[in-house]
Amino acid sequence: MADAIRALAIDAVEAAKSGHPGMPMGMADVATVLWTRFLKFDAADPRWPDRDRFVLSAGHGSMLLYALIHLTGHAGMGIEDLKQFRQLHSVAAGHPEYGEHPAIETTTGPLGQGLATAVGMALAERHLAARFGRSLVDHRTWVIASDGDLMEGISHEAASLAGHMKLSKLTVLWDDNGISIDGDLSISSSEDQLKRFAAYGWAVKRVDGHDPDAVAAACAQAVRASKPTLIACRTIIGFSAPTKAGTAGSHGSPLGGAEAAAAKAALGWTHAPFEVPEDLRALWATAGARSSGPRRSWLKRLAKHPQKGEFDRAIQGRLPDGWTDSLNALRASIAENKPNQGSRISSQKALEALVPAVPEMIGGSADLTGSNNTNVKGIPAMKPGDYAGRFVHWGIREHGMAAAMNGMALHGGIIPYSGTFLIFADYLRPALRLAALMQQRVIHVLTHDSIGLGEDGPTHQPVETLASLRCIPNVSVFRPADAMETAECWDLALRRNDGPSVLALSRQNLPTLSTETGENRCARGGYVLAEASGPRRATFIATGSEVQLAMAARDMLEAEGLPAAVVSLPCWELFAAQDPAYREATLGSAPRIGIEAAVSFGWDRWLGPEGAFIGMTGFGASAPAEQLYRHFGITAEAAAQAARKRITTNA
Amino acid sequence: MADAIRALAIDAVEAAKSGHPGMPMGMADVATVLWTRFLKFDAADPRWPDRDRFVLSAGHGSMLLYALIHLTGHAGMGIEDLKQFRQLHSVAAGHPEYGEHPAIETTTGPLGQGLATAVGMALAERHLAARFGRSLVDHRTWVIASDGDLMEGISHEAASLAGHMKLSKLTVLWDDNGISIDGDLSISSSEDQLKRFAAYGWAVKRVDGHDPDAVAAACAQAVRASKPTLIACRTIIGFSAPTKAGTAGSHGSPLGGAEAAAAKAALGWTHAPFEVPEDLRALWATAGARSSGPRRSWLKRLAKHPQKGEFDRAIQGRLPDGWTDSLNALRASIAENKPNQGSRISSQKALEALVPAVPEMIGGSADLTGSNNTNVKGIPAMKPGDYAGRFVHWGIREHGMAAAMNGMALHGGIIPYSGTFLIFADYLRPALRLAALMQQRVIHVLTHDSIGLGEDGPTHQPVETLASLRCIPNVSVFRPADAMETAECWDLALRRNDGPSVLALSRQNLPTLSTETGENRCARGGYVLAEASGPRRATFIATGSEVQLAMAARDMLEAEGLPAAVVSLPCWELFAAQDPAYREATLGSAPRIGIEAAVSFGWDRWLGPEGAFIGMTGFGASAPAEQLYRHFGITAEAAAQAARKRITTNA
Repeated sequence: MADAIRALAIDAVEAAKSGHPGMPMGMADVATVLWTRFLKFDAADPRWPDRDRFVLSAGHGSMLLYALIHLTGHAGMGIEDLKQFRQLHSVAAGHPEYGEHPAIETTTGPLGQGLATAVGMALAERHLAARFGRSLVDHRTWVIASDGDLMEGISHEAASLAGHMKLSKLTVLWDDNGISIDGDLSISSSEDQLKRFAAYGWAVKRVDGHDPDAVAAACAQAVRASKPTLIACRTIIGFSAPTKAGTAGSHGSPLGGAEAAAAKAALGWTHAPFEVPEDLRALWATAGARSSGPRRSWLKRLAKHPQKGEFDRAIQGRLPDGWTDSLNALRASIAENKPNQGSRISSQKALEALVPAVPEMIGGSADLTGSNNTNVKGIPAMKPGDYAGRFVHWGIREHGMAAAMNGMALHGGIIPYSGTFLIFADYLRPALRLAALMQQRVIHVLTHDSIGLGEDGPTHQPVETLASLRCIPNVSVFRPADAMETAECWDLALRRNDGPSVLALSRQNLPTLSTETGENRCARGGYVLAEASGPRRATFIATGSEVQLAMAARDMLEAEGLPAAVVSLPCWELFAAQDPAYREATLGSAPRIGIEAAVSFGWDRWLGPEGAFIGMTGFGASAPAEQLYRHFGITAEAAAQAARKRITTNA
Repeated sequence: MADAIRALAIDAVEAAKSGHPGMPMGMADVATVLWTRFLKFDAADPRWPDRDRFVLSAGHGSMLLYALIHLTGHAGMGIEDLKQFRQLHSVAAGHPEYGEHPAIETTTGPLGQGLATAVGMALAERHLAARFGRSLVDHRTWVIASDGDLMEGISHEAASLAGHMKLSKLTVLWDDNGISIDGDLSISSSEDQLKRFAAYGWAVKRVDGHDPDAVAAACAQAVRASKPTLIACRTIIGFSAPTKAGTAGSHGSPLGGAEAAAAKAALGWTHAPFEVPEDLRALWATAGARSSGPRRSWLKRLAKHPQKGEFDRAIQGRLPDGWTDSLNALRASIAENKPNQGSRISSQKALEALVPAVPEMIGGSADLTGSNNTNVKGIPAMKPGDYAGRFVHWGIREHGMAAAMNGMALHGGIIPYSGTFLIFADYLRPALRLAALMQQRVIHVLTHDSIGLGEDGPTHQPVETLASLRCIPNVSVFRPADAMETAECWDLALRRNDGPSVLALSRQNLPTLSTETGENRCARGGYVLAEASGPRRATFIATGSEVQLAMAARDMLEAEGLPAAVVSLPCWELFAAQDPAYREATLGSAPRIGIEAAVSFGWDRWLGPEGAFIGMTGFGASAPAEQLYRHFGITAEAAAQAARKRITTNA
């Protein structure tokens, strides 16, 4: 059965004239044991909520996964699909792409991500088991990981967290082949991985990856363990290739016709390319239906479960009825009380309205809970062995946090939101990108969003971070100006079910500027917060903490008889999606002055060649926030002066 | 002596009304042992090349470092400076900032960076000792690290590498205080750090951090060890504060007047704020001059050393005479032979010209050596115990690589250049940002720079990465169009001694478009590669692999009697620095069509509101490269058509 995987991998890579045959050939035995004896899944319904999750962290070995999906009889991965490996519009893409086939649990390829995503899936399972009971939620998470996965820094964060949280239903099968692209692994690494994972609190075991019974025994042991398990599977990369097996030569390119033929001959595989004999197909089909009984039993349990409706709703990602009630009440209260508070505090107030109403929301912080204001009073944290809590102390592990959040969202039944400083978006960026690519609803609460954080200085002041996030496709970056906009942006972030959102929030206090309690004006991305008292002579365009400066600058001009408008632009992506007429009407034809305590990169789109920008031109500095704004010339006076200059020039 | 540190830390944080007193108070004993008995330095010359390097990886405890610099008698860190802690223009910034004081070896604050940077410093020492001999280069690297440093993923990459490379002169003093911002460390972590580091091949030791003799014994053991050493120093955060010691409450905010007074009373410290009694000052001054004898001996050795000139040149970062000769010869050869090759191959050719001529250049790759083309034939790699090589197999550790490269550059005597795929800039971004902030000459060779990488698909196709790098202040992003521009950009990257450079290079072949062998036209960031045959009707502006499309589009228009120009824009930062007249003349007033196989974010600046952009609007896909260009409409035809449309509209 394993040789069928090998043959298909060889054939697909040869046909594509590119790809990675070595890993599928090396791990075919391990994967066969896992998929035929342990993995709980039913090819008839790859999205069965209580299936085991399988994550191919070593995504370059995608043909291993495609062959498994194909052989186990899933619809939508026919032999023609395998023949189209790595071709345009193929479900069998170069790396596994979430959404291309329902049995692909997550997009992998960037090393380490799959492992950390799996930790989130395993955590999600534990939480949902606590919420809905083990009769509905009782499954395992299995990972195949490579040396590269274990070398990446994120593996440390993920494995440390999994060990701490005692995620005993997580098993990692490590393809311990001793080879990396540059050659023998020993040229760059000599650590003892088993000892390392044992230090994290994992059960560890080493087996011959080509001995199915040994692999099965280790998996059985993992199932019984009270800790997550790492199984080092000693394998030969490119197994059976006569000259390339055990070398980097089999890793990332086709074997070539002669070597491919010889590899098949060594396996005793005599079938034509892409041909699998019926007897093997039958065996694999049986494996694909192995859990159909358990699935039917589960469906019966679900049908009569008192929480069926709630379970379905959560898994399908539908927000509960009335989830906006408290948020709307908060908006009314904001309009009335006009609080002057950091938008991180405003976010906390929004969370106090939302978290009780939306039981899928699981918060967290990378050890900045009190600064990010992401926890809500009375909501306990998840603990090792007690996963009912709805807050995660992620530790100082931003990257692992974001990847695990992806896993929670992918698992279903959870809407994860994080907390860290905006500057540390850089640490979690690769995982955020995957959330965007996979269209997952994860929400990052990123506070201390400018020089307004003050004394911590340039290492902590995210002058370029807004631009660096706005440029990622399918990320919604919200930078609300006050308490009202913060509530509105939270509403939008929660509604958004096809991609991640970032809320960039201030440390420093911000006055309430908007008292609109009806329309969610942030939904258009940008809007006229204050119209000019007459034909516009200038338009100030700002985001977040700088909108108050725009209002003050407007006051100055208006006092001088120069009608000026203020546009708040909390979400560029949404604004860009409006029709051009709305955008033009909002931005106006008068000179435009952009204000943001960040670099101007990207602002030209809104300001045009005649516009002016008041913001940063380089890194920040360490000093109290108010001094920094003055020092860097980000003031209402500077904005007003820029407007006056343009008005004069135009006149 | 330690109490002097504590008192100054308390006073400075109180005066600033912000800061982190807990760590300096906890680690004062450890730091005193290190600086008075082990650290080789001379306050009279903090830049002495053979000094030990001290890295405060836990940068939030900056007052520890400032107090040490002050007490040991360094110029430029007087008591007035400490009183200005965290104030504008103070050398005593919120986090240690490289460049603010010569005894600050590196900027720290973003956790994990200091540790990984120190690994690069230690590696640099080993290499330079191999090059110049131990009579000139024989020093150690000492790090104080926090729990947060060890939780971050980068710590894994750095520590694994240090263990593998047997960097025995690296010692990490871990502030093992069991407290993080969210509270007791046990809420988020339960790993066995000593076991973990032992798995990396480190010597490990645990001591009472408040027992100076125990700390000293452990340091002495570290000096003798044949491996890097981790010393877990059990400490009490906020040591001596009556109610806040041992709690997160002492971590990140002032103790408050009463608690501060009580803490000093507990220490028996009776002096006024910022006052240090003369006897203690004298003891500290003695420590500051402890290595003045060794420094003088070293100076004598240097003076008569046969490699003195070369050593001075390397340490000062001056490029050797004649270093451009081979590169100029390469340019002549390119003009003659017009190679059609990937710019990663062109980069390899440039390296073949440069690496033999510039002995400070140390290359490397994060396990993609053959793909990045960063190694040069005949240049051996560094190996554990044999550090003479000039190439580093960094392993699959992009983040650790980039931070260690920062350390190499900061150490002096080395110009490090890396290799990985452009997409993985996301993994190394926090370290690149620090290189920009610290103005260090590090060069990242980032290949496979667009959908042109083909079948590996969207996880590997950096559609937003160029924008995300261009927006970082002080990073020069070069995207050369052909072999000639690649040679020119390498010349510029090497000359650039005040910040990092990125070379974004193609996997796929690119024809030679420029045969200019005189002026380095890339030095202006952008230039007219092909002028229109008459008054411009359109200007095509492109970078890298898309410049050939611009040339083809120009041919189409010219054939139709529409004179069109092509502007190559290999480096936006340099182009932005040109005078406006040059920029306007280059870009012209005809409709501008931008072409780049990336998102348009940032392009508006060059295209203006009337411009058109041919590029990506979202993530890529898995398919052969040529098909992807057609699929996403990035073709000469599309560019020509966009120009025609604008010409018609304008007419």
